[in-house]
Amino acid sequence: MPIKLAANAYGKNAVNLSRVIRHAGHHEFRQVSVSVQLTGDFEAAHTLGDNSLILPTDTQKNTVYALAKEHFTGTIEAYGLVLARHFVSRNPQVSKARIELLEHGWQRMHFDGQDHPHAFTGGGSEKRRAVVELTADGTTTVWAGLKGLMLLKTADSGFVGYPKDEYTVLPETTDRILATECEAEWEYISADLDFEALYQKIRTGLLRTFSAHQSLSVQHTLYAIGEKILEQNDEVKEISLIMPNKHHIPFNLTPFGQENTNEVFVATDAPFGYITGTVVRG
Amino acid sequence: MPIKLAANAYGKNAVNLSRVIRHAGHHEFRQVSVSVQLTGDFEAAHTLGDNSLILPTDTQKNTVYALAKEHFTGTIEAYGLVLARHFVSRNPQVSKARIELLEHGWQRMHFDGQDHPHAFTGGGSEKRRAVVELTADGTTTVWAGLKGLMLLKTADSGFVGYPKDEYTVLPETTDRILATECEAEWEYISADLDFEALYQKIRTGLLRTFSAHQSLSVQHTLYAIGEKILEQNDEVKEISLIMPNKHHIPFNLTPFGQENTNEVFVATDAPFGYITGTVVRG
Amino acid sequence: MPIKLAANAYGKNAVNLSRVIRHAGHHEFRQVSVSVQLTGDFEAAHTLGDNSLILPTDTQKNTVYALAKEHFTGTIEAYGLVLARHFVSRNPQVSKARIELLEHGWQRMHFDGQDHPHAFTGGGSEKRRAVVELTADGTTTVWAGLKGLMLLKTADSGFVGYPKDEYTVLPETTDRILATECEAEWEYISADLDFEALYQKIRTGLLRTFSAHQSLSVQHTLYAIGEKILEQNDEVKEISLIMPNKHHIPFNLTPFGQENTNEVFVATDAPFGYITGTVVRG
Amino acid sequence: MPIKLAANAYGKNAVNLSRVIRHAGHHEFRQVSVSVQLTGDFEAAHTLGDNSLILPTDTQKNTVYALAKEHFTGTIEAYGLVLARHFVSRNPQVSKARIELLEHGWQRMHFDGQDHPHAFTGGGSEKRRAVVELTADGTTTVWAGLKGLMLLKTADSGFVGYPKDEYTVLPETTDRILATECEAEWEYISADLDFEALYQKIRTGLLRTFSAHQSLSVQHTLYAIGEKILEQNDEVKEISLIMPNKHHIPFNLTPFGQENTNEVFVATDAPFGYITGTVVRG
Repeated sequence: MPIKLAANAYGKNAVNLSRVIRHAGHHEFRQVSVSVQLTGDFEAAHTLGDNSLILPTDTQKNTVYALAKEHFTGTIEAYGLVLARHFVSRNPQVSKARIELLEHGWQRMHFDGQDHPHAFTGGGSEKRRAVVELTADGTTTVWAGLKGLMLLKTADSGFVGYPKDEYTVLPETTDRILATECEAEWEYISADLDFEALYQKIRTGLLRTFSAHQSLSVQHTLYAIGEKILEQNDEVKEISLIMPNKHHIPFNLTPFGQENTNEVFVATDAPFGYITGTVVRG
Repeated sequence: MPIKLAANAYGKNAVNLSRVIRHAGHHEFRQVSVSVQLTGDFEAAHTLGDNSLILPTDTQKNTVYALAKEHFTGTIEAYGLVLARHFVSRNPQVSKARIELLEHGWQRMHFDGQDHPHAFTGGGSEKRRAVVELTADGTTTVWAGLKGLMLLKTADSGFVGYPKDEYTVLPETTDRILATECEAEWEYISADLDFEALYQKIRTGLLRTFSAHQSLSVQHTLYAIGEKILEQNDEVKEISLIMPNKHHIPFNLTPFGQENTNEVFVATDAPFGYITGTVVRG
Repeated sequence: MPIKLAANAYGKNAVNLSRVIRHAGHHEFRQVSVSVQLTGDFEAAHTLGDNSLILPTDTQKNTVYALAKEHFTGTIEAYGLVLARHFVSRNPQVSKARIELLEHGWQRMHFDGQDHPHAFTGGGSEKRRAVVELTADGTTTVWAGLKGLMLLKTADSGFVGYPKDEYTVLPETTDRILATECEAEWEYISADLDFEALYQKIRTGLLRTFSAHQSLSVQHTLYAIGEKILEQNDEVKEISLIMPNKHHIPFNLTPFGQENTNEVFVATDAPFGYITGTVVRG
Repeated sequence: MPIKLAANAYGKNAVNLSRVIRHAGHHEFRQVSVSVQLTGDFEAAHTLGDNSLILPTDTQKNTVYALAKEHFTGTIEAYGLVLARHFVSRNPQVSKARIELLEHGWQRMHFDGQDHPHAFTGGGSEKRRAVVELTADGTTTVWAGLKGLMLLKTADSGFVGYPKDEYTVLPETTDRILATECEAEWEYISADLDFEALYQKIRTGLLRTFSAHQSLSVQHTLYAIGEKILEQNDEVKEISLIMPNKHHIPFNLTPFGQENTNEVFVATDAPFGYITGTVVRG
């Protein structure tokens, strides 16, 4: 059987773009990591070393900066659409452009009841994320989401009723800490939406559901979040959630003559439960 | 439209297993990170909080350790098969078990022409990787691969002939540093092979091709590696490669009255070119 | 000349302690990484392998958990004092105990104008830090501080008037982004203070000074912060600051026919300016 | 009491310098991260914003690249000396220059009994390190060392005879895994030595001592290494070692009806024992 190229793609990842938007009297500051991925007619590059259809990743990077001044003034979804349209419209060899944007949050400082015009704090693990895909036939898909959102609750979480076998050691509990580093990604039904308002509404819905849910397992809470977001947002076609279980294990105080009434815990990094699920309209 | 659960899975990730194999006169030391992922009939857990079919990830972890004494004595592929068969055969609700094993390399110390019986050095970024999938109907698939293999060559690499547009700044070059952090994953045609010998042969073939290739682009070298591994190994069905371009940019010495004849470089972490491709038999 | 042991110390690092404090109607959640370091009469352990004076680091870890239930109910400074006193009073071979505590911040969720009783978000890079040292003669020293505080301002920062030589390329600027990942550590004059109120007051003073300062260099702002904190807090003996310069470099848009009026920047991770200084009372 | 500036310093950190040295028939490839730190008359910069004595960190970075073509052709110690002399001789306001160099190892590929002329593998955690300090009065100090050297032995290590108290749980053992991520730094008696030969000899001595030692504790092995290096190398004035205990804990197989005869272990990242010591001539 002959050997041949199958799926392939390339692009520039991790283009770190910072943007000051200067209003009279105050500034906005935005920081985003942009990744471009192109799919298309790249076979000759692989098999022959013919680069005549390979738009260099360095040019892709320059484009991300060059279009930012005029076009990166609103949501990351909107800027992703601008970039995807640029690469597809200019490069007939490209069958699909995928733009991923990860936004680092910066909070405006606030003193004496007033917003500071140009000073910010940052550094949170939570990132807002958008992915835009545009194909040469004009099909546009927009996903939004978040990563690195650390969630924890100290009540309303248990885990009982699971199967036992000879390797079971875990005790059942009706009162445990539930903690996760949540990653969520939802697909919108359209590329023409109020992405800012929807993002804020969906993020709040996620937090509310996590906090209020009577959790019988991570899966149970994951599904409750997905279901609620679909119920509340007709603009969302489906949602995928990744909710690793950041275990908090009660430390065994018995050898020291104390009872640990769910007060003193060890937070472990590895190993960790890894729970993923997609909730759709059916 | 009703809301429902679609794709979902769960398991324990990053189970750090170290194993001493005690031979007369010398020891082997192995260190592996194991991740278990189960797919199956988990809908009631999500929608009702019914855990009666949810084998706890803690039990999965215990199983990885408990079976290691008897069964983790050879390749990671072989141990992955043992674990996958365990979880599928014991749990009828599981439609697929996926086991991923990432092995950290430890090198035996060597002094005065002799191997040391029980002392080792470690710490390389390169990891050997195996993935085993077993479905309830008995279909077994084995992938092998590696991650974190840092490759670099200071000759026989160029990049010319690419399209130019108004955002092009990159100069063409016939002499650049080619560096990558290579990730490779290949699928075997069978679960009954000499996984150790094949791994060593494929890894060497990868290094040889990288070093000898007259590279016209990362894509060109990626394909050459994939093609060579398929040509040399009938046991490999297909191979996927990820070869980010770890750019080494000549530092501009002109302002200081020097010519930089490809001797002094800045290695940058971000942004980076990201090149992926799969090579198959067609 | 004979060979001998000089400075040495040991202890358990990175003891990850989580604590739920259960009030009627709401919970507090605290997470801290504790490191213990002991100095003392450990020469025979080094030279002879005599462990009779080596309190195991495993015992140190257990102590951190065992004392937490009763004693970790307030500030990290207070808990550090409890631990230091425990190790020094119980172990006559210990000449000095040093306890470092790094607290991860968790923010209570808040909906509809109300605090949630037991749900939290986390994940910020900023950590609160305390270091307590107690020597066998009873001398206690307490340092407080913070790490990972990301600060950025888009106005009131410049850098001009520096010496030029044949390796100078940097243009002078009166309008640049000033960004840093601030680390601060201050020594208190006493171990008997309101550590909570002081911490909040000092942190706020740091933010206010950073935001309001007409910065002529990182050094200039570093000193202004240190000076202000000493002026405002008689309880602070001295303060050390580490303020790496997280460079934001204007992207050169000239090749693309655009002027970059301080709007589009590249944030770089390496290399970075590293500025440190201590401000004292003289 | 007036407020004033005390200890302070600044410089450029993490200047990533790669260097190809082109010989007829083969190339060398070197990669090093250089950090420059200057101490001196910088008070007016802090208190007045007067930058007239502040050599910009950008200029420091350029200097590291500009001098590399001619001068970075041998050891990192030698290049550190060149850089330190440059900064001190050109800048009368500088009372001390400290240059730290961290070298990433790249291994030449080797096929069929032959070295490849220009292809390399990299990625090890072990780095070679040199620190050079030069003061304005001409005093030069050179330290060499290494970081990230992962060492492990599966025999000849135990830990017994330690004090017990009510928080002791750890069982004594005469057969455990000893593992560490070793950091070593030694001071040379002179700046005019064969740094390459000494480094290789000292590194080998460290490995030999670690592997051969009948270890009664980490402290015991740390001291044995330090003592041996001082005995074998008159050129070394003193040596400091950091040897965190990378714990490998036997997994409890008893609940599963198995005995764990020191074969199956959990490697944990946190918490960890942290052992440091300096060995000197007295």
